[in-house]
Amino acid sequence: MGLTTVDDRSISLPVKQDTRNAILEAAAPLIYRQGFHRTGLKEILDAAGVPKGSFYFYFKSKEDFGLALIDHYTSALAERAREEIELSGEPALARLRRVFEDRRDTRASHGCQGGCPIGNLAQEMSDLSPVMREHLQQALNAVAANIATLLRSALSRGELSQELDPDRTAGFILDAWEGALLRMKTEKSVAPLDRFIHFIFDKILV
Amino acid sequence: MGLTTVDDRSISLPVKQDTRNAILEAAAPLIYRQGFHRTGLKEILDAAGVPKGSFYFYFKSKEDFGLALIDHYTSALAERAREEIELSGEPALARLRRVFEDRRDTRASHGCQGGCPIGNLAQEMSDLSPVMREHLQQALNAVAANIATLLRSALSRGELSQELDPDRTAGFILDAWEGALLRMKTEKSVAPLDRFIHFIFDKILV
Repeated sequence: MGLTTVDDRSISLPVKQDTRNAILEAAAPLIYRQGFHRTGLKEILDAAGVPKGSFYFYFKSKEDFGLALIDHYTSALAERAREEIELSGEPALARLRRVFEDRRDTRASHGCQGGCPIGNLAQEMSDLSPVMREHLQQALNAVAANIATLLRSALSRGELSQELDPDRTAGFILDAWEGALLRMKTEKSVAPLDRFIHFIFDKILV
Repeated sequence: MGLTTVDDRSISLPVKQDTRNAILEAAAPLIYRQGFHRTGLKEILDAAGVPKGSFYFYFKSKEDFGLALIDHYTSALAERAREEIELSGEPALARLRRVFEDRRDTRASHGCQGGCPIGNLAQEMSDLSPVMREHLQQALNAVAANIATLLRSALSRGELSQELDPDRTAGFILDAWEGALLRMKTEKSVAPLDRFIHFIFDKILV
């Protein structure tokens, strides 16, 4: 298998892996905006600049592609979360609040479109593809685990009431955030994100 | 225009209205399960037992049909909410809690499938159809207004802290519920609905 020399970053990637990533990167914003079923293979391959008909060289099926897409979104979110959370010197609770405030500002600057890429797929596919449901469950659990880690850190520093269960609370925070993002899309307003921040940080995490 | 005599309930409905309702009733569970775009007109008309090709006699477009479907879901939810809320003699806060506990039990008995029919459409269509988005926004606002009415009643009886803003709180409750339903679909467990009930009723509504 040959090596691509398109740019420095990809010099060590085999061609197959590189094209596969190009398809995922082209598909991610399309499916984020329009949904999984609605976005056809031809539209994805056109956007990626990959010859029509070559899709099944890279993915066994559209479902197999869906799994790769969930991993693609998850990696992007995890990388962003790592930057936001680990590289900050703030106390845990202030960091967590800032993460959600940053997300709110980003959604506002994008016209309150899109919502959560994982949440969208979870809504669309959880009842339709058992294997995608399992990947989506893992992806959401990983996000909740990150929130729980920050809550544990806050608990250990006495920033939070000791009776608070970090895992249960993290689950509730993530669910409430997904619901707030959904309502934001429909309201075309960040008011649902603002009230999420108010209730979570001023009423629950005290 | 003739009158149908299919059953007593529909005796005064014109045929056109009756067939239109039959299409909506056949489509509602299909779209609830599979999504709006994924459910084709042929599948809907087959399920309704209506001749192929007659769809555009009843609806101007699939989007026009989508608006009627939102109204169909909204009427069904409003009727159920009326029965649950108005016909009960319990104090407002206990009634509200019971509504969510009943919903949790119903979802459990349906294998944690489906989620919220309005929330599903809101997720799928809010960025794709401005007119459906507007109808969905109104539908969600109507549900939030019902919750706010119960909160006002609870406030007036001293069941809640007076500093609680009923509209803002109702908005948060609805959003958190939508997110919990979404997570339930992905977890295939009512644990997200249980923790919703815990945090809303034991931490916020106090």
